[in-house]
Amino acid sequence: MEKGGTKWVFRGNPKFKSGSQISSISGALQILHGSLNAADERPTIPVGHGDPSVFPCFRTTHIAEDALNHAVQSAKFNSYTPTAGLLPARRSVAEYLSRDLPYKLSPDDVFLTSGCRQAIEVSLSVLAYPGANILIPRPAYPHYETYAPFINLKVRHFDLLPDKGWEVDLDAVEALADENTVAIVIVNPGNPCGNVLTYQHLKKVAETARRLGILVIADEVYGHLTFGNNPFVPMGVFGSIVPVLTLGSISKRWIVPGWRLGWLAITDPNGVVKENKLQQFYVLTVLLMFQGAVPQILENTKEDFFNKIISLLRQTADICYDEIKGIGCITCPHKPEGSMFVMVKLNTSLLEDIYDDMDFCLKLAKEESVIVLPGTVLGLKNWLRITFAIDPSALKDAMERIKSFCQRHAKQVSNNNGTKNNDS
Amino acid sequence: MEKGGTKWVFRGNPKFKSGSQISSISGALQILHGSLNAADERPTIPVGHGDPSVFPCFRTTHIAEDALNHAVQSAKFNSYTPTAGLLPARRSVAEYLSRDLPYKLSPDDVFLTSGCRQAIEVSLSVLAYPGANILIPRPAYPHYETYAPFINLKVRHFDLLPDKGWEVDLDAVEALADENTVAIVIVNPGNPCGNVLTYQHLKKVAETARRLGILVIADEVYGHLTFGNNPFVPMGVFGSIVPVLTLGSISKRWIVPGWRLGWLAITDPNGVVKENKLQQFYVLTVLLMFQGAVPQILENTKEDFFNKIISLLRQTADICYDEIKGIGCITCPHKPEGSMFVMVKLNTSLLEDIYDDMDFCLKLAKEESVIVLPGTVLGLKNWLRITFAIDPSALKDAMERIKSFCQRHAKQVSNNNGTKNNDS
Repeated sequence: MEKGGTKWVFRGNPKFKSGSQISSISGALQILHGSLNAADERPTIPVGHGDPSVFPCFRTTHIAEDALNHAVQSAKFNSYTPTAGLLPARRSVAEYLSRDLPYKLSPDDVFLTSGCRQAIEVSLSVLAYPGANILIPRPAYPHYETYAPFINLKVRHFDLLPDKGWEVDLDAVEALADENTVAIVIVNPGNPCGNVLTYQHLKKVAETARRLGILVIADEVYGHLTFGNNPFVPMGVFGSIVPVLTLGSISKRWIVPGWRLGWLAITDPNGVVKENKLQQFYVLTVLLMFQGAVPQILENTKEDFFNKIISLLRQTADICYDEIKGIGCITCPHKPEGSMFVMVKLNTSLLEDIYDDMDFCLKLAKEESVIVLPGTVLGLKNWLRITFAIDPSALKDAMERIKSFCQRHAKQVSNNNGTKNNDS
Repeated sequence: MEKGGTKWVFRGNPKFKSGSQISSISGALQILHGSLNAADERPTIPVGHGDPSVFPCFRTTHIAEDALNHAVQSAKFNSYTPTAGLLPARRSVAEYLSRDLPYKLSPDDVFLTSGCRQAIEVSLSVLAYPGANILIPRPAYPHYETYAPFINLKVRHFDLLPDKGWEVDLDAVEALADENTVAIVIVNPGNPCGNVLTYQHLKKVAETARRLGILVIADEVYGHLTFGNNPFVPMGVFGSIVPVLTLGSISKRWIVPGWRLGWLAITDPNGVVKENKLQQFYVLTVLLMFQGAVPQILENTKEDFFNKIISLLRQTADICYDEIKGIGCITCPHKPEGSMFVMVKLNTSLLEDIYDDMDFCLKLAKEESVIVLPGTVLGLKNWLRITFAIDPSALKDAMERIKSFCQRHAKQVSNNNGTKNNDS
């Protein structure tokens, strides 16, 4: 071997390494799993994820399973995905979304995407002309923030207001926007906040966007998963005020996140978008078998299945909210009424040796085998996102473990006569 | 609407448009489909693709369909794909590949990929340090060439020699390589050439790579699809001479290109690769349900199914080769003995009004509703790639139409006394 020895190395280009793990939810969860104590014989309880499909009580409907099996057994959907996408699939998504709109979408308004994640990427890509910026909420699902730099799209943050049910700070939106702002992102029902925006507030968002001359990107991947007082109102209802790009998927409502079938719909009934170059920025990667199955899934799923899931989420949200009240160092500003999550504020000043949310989550994983997502990943330091979409008895167990963890780490405060008490 | 009118435009960033269509097979086929004559009532015959799954005679085995249905019905594989991949899936691929090797691969030697396409991308990415170059064959499957610029990997071409059964021009390889060369790509069985390299020639490739101190990337996506004199020899057989990255998938042997399950295996029995950073450049995107199904597919598929497909490919390759002999303006330098393709040389000097291979294919699509892939897409101008992996009677029909197209466009040559003859 003349000169081979030193060359047989997989060095790779450091520029193209996958990004910092901590900027993605899966990366953060991976770090936390690395912190687990193998000697703890109790089962690990995951309340950091957005995927309840591993719990039998959250199993998808047989209608969806049968539709996919039928697509496989037909042998019609084993091919490469054709460029255009199947018309029946796009038509069924258009009809599904139109059920809740005051006008009808056509199949041409719908693009199929590999999960909501690709819908995010396509919607940002089509807007990212040189110099453009986009307004995204804080806290938010992090993929908006991590994807934007790849297409040189600048990001500006507006706050969601915890004391106002995580509504959009509309004054901040007006102050942030300039002539290079192309869109505002709204995630409703909220991830990570578990809130559901009212008709009136969504209308104000639409009117603000119209005034600013920007589009609304409405991430409705948790659409219809609501169990509080506010019903789910699709942003597309206000499409005649402002053009809306609606993002969604079957992942959450049907509890099949691994089935990569999402969509991007243009809800623009007045056709005010002047030049639609979406097709140019779009590569269809949805597996043909999902395209084959989706009409049956959307048309045939029974209300019973949806009702069962909603009732389960209401039950687990109640358990989570009630248990949090009994834990001193975390507080919940707003009872969750949608999606699968609640955001809670962590008060580290009440804790002895916990420096921040990441430190809290690492030690919690190590000591209690409970995985919680640090708010830092979502843009809010010293907050935590807790997923209640798990088996109810496992959730109770997780909350008990979090409580005992917090008690064990509670700060010993000095009382008047100089001795120490544990106040938690 | 104060300033909105001019802003509601999907302009997008021109830098990030999807690349030139002609550089991809699907892009070229799309252009050719656009040239079809809607008034032609005959069915369009596609002989430009690499996906015979639409033809009932090429339907996959019920073992594969049942395995996937079983995975769906178990409800164990509806989740997001975990970072590491399922051990049983990696183990089954390691065992499948080890059947043909003089040593055993471990599950840790195997990475699951979303089709062979992602295996190409990962293998190039892990090698692309700044300034690196890679040797790829001409002609070749174009994704090596189109992906390399994204990771700043430089490409150098060596010829495959049509008069030597499309063997590698090893002298050219020696002349092309320098201290920044990281690997040579070998596609065997050959796409687009339909050749199958001998044990002796593959050994020479391995020895050359060892002498140059470069890795071999062995694209064996058409592995085992051979029906001539040369048996399929996996490059990994020579892993003790030179480390080999073996790329493959279930797409072709099982006729399920739309099921995105491929792999990248490191066949390096002596462990000479010094630093393996593969994990850093690798994002697992294989749907969990395919990971769940693959052990059953690889272990349980009967020889009967493989034999049926091989016998069908032998039959269609014969039809194709025999029909080509009767067409004046195209010649086949080497009878196909593997994969699903044959490369034929186009002699435009015998044709009246056909300028090059792309012109030939566009006019053929328009006049005869037959889709053939122009060699330009594969790096060889004025060659054509014909897919024989279609229904035999449709193939005969396609070859008849190509023949009459060539006859109709044959050049009228002057004979001695000045009048014109049609010489075809």
